[in-house]
Amino acid sequence: MPRGHLHLDPAVRQEATTRLLSIKGHVEGIIRMLSDEGVYCVDVLRQLKAVEGALKQVSSKVLEAHLRDHVATAKERGDVENIVQELMEALKYT
Amino acid sequence: MPRGHLHLDPAVRQEATTRLLSIKGHVEGIIRMLSDEGVYCVDVLRQLKAVEGALKQVSSKVLEAHLRDHVATAKERGDVENIVQELMEALKYT
Amino acid sequence: MPRGHLHLDPAVRQEATTRLLSIKGHVEGIIRMLSDEGVYCVDVLRQLKAVEGALKQVSSKVLEAHLRDHVATAKERGDVENIVQELMEALKYT
Amino acid sequence: MPRGHLHLDPAVRQEATTRLLSIKGHVEGIIRMLSDEGVYCVDVLRQLKAVEGALKQVSSKVLEAHLRDHVATAKERGDVENIVQELMEALKYT
Repeated sequence: MPRGHLHLDPAVRQEATTRLLSIKGHVEGIIRMLSDEGVYCVDVLRQLKAVEGALKQVSSKVLEAHLRDHVATAKERGDVENIVQELMEALKYT
Repeated sequence: MPRGHLHLDPAVRQEATTRLLSIKGHVEGIIRMLSDEGVYCVDVLRQLKAVEGALKQVSSKVLEAHLRDHVATAKERGDVENIVQELMEALKYT
Repeated sequence: MPRGHLHLDPAVRQEATTRLLSIKGHVEGIIRMLSDEGVYCVDVLRQLKAVEGALKQVSSKVLEAHLRDHVATAKERGDVENIVQELMEALKYT
Repeated sequence: MPRGHLHLDPAVRQEATTRLLSIKGHVEGIIRMLSDEGVYCVDVLRQLKAVEGALKQVSSKVLEAHLRDHVATAKERGDVENIVQELMEALKYT
């Protein structure tokens, strides 16, 4: 796997961190909702979907940085096959 | 919207809470990963996908409880149209 | 499995048929695109995503009819457990 | 947008065509199912999901070829920004 010298862009690392802190707060909010025995299923479903959407946005930012900084430079570096297989594998879990 | 007297099943509420506490821990783990300036994009992507998968499992448990306890009884209660529209709307955000 | 006397609503059957005829035409269009050796990957990807979106809309119409006509009446009919399990299983392949 | 000289790999073009012919046959099969007035919603849903899965596999093959042949070479060609933006835009419709 092509790692070692390949790092996530610092600005994206920062943005992802900020977004994940907000996602963590959102998850804590849903846990609090669930402590109310009168909570309604569909309200919980809506909050879970919102968190899913927010996670997808983080993934999208990280993917974009990876494409730009590591996939687009793979031919120059000489690890095209590895980097493409690795990414296809990671995207499969979507 | 049909609420008020419709509540999420207590056992599912408990299970969802347990799973969300674990999801919260997983999110905190990714935030820690991101504090390492050598972190690799694809490792972050994989963790984000894992959290997405875990969230989908929580949604699936809540949806199942809702279908069983509130949708399947809608004709008896007399609010079929409302409960179906509400659920279709909530599923749209998937 | 609860079938036999449960049928898809005729109007939805008609609408789904019309939409699938259009989807079939769209698929044929992509096959024609692919016969051009100068076709560009991203143009193909966009068309494939459009077809996926159109299929999801058909699924959504069929799901809505199923919830309204068969899930919402399950308690009255007495097959709640079967109908919910069956639907959860079918939704899993999303 | 970076096109013109960028083409989908011939072997992938052939494979995608073969898979889409099979998908077209599958769609025709669902249309036939729907001509039976006794057809059951969940049977239709399952077939629609199967077609969606098959379409995703075609997209996956095309995406892999695009990453390998056009994204991985973007730095050499000098169109990184365009090719990454274009792909992120196309993936958004998933």
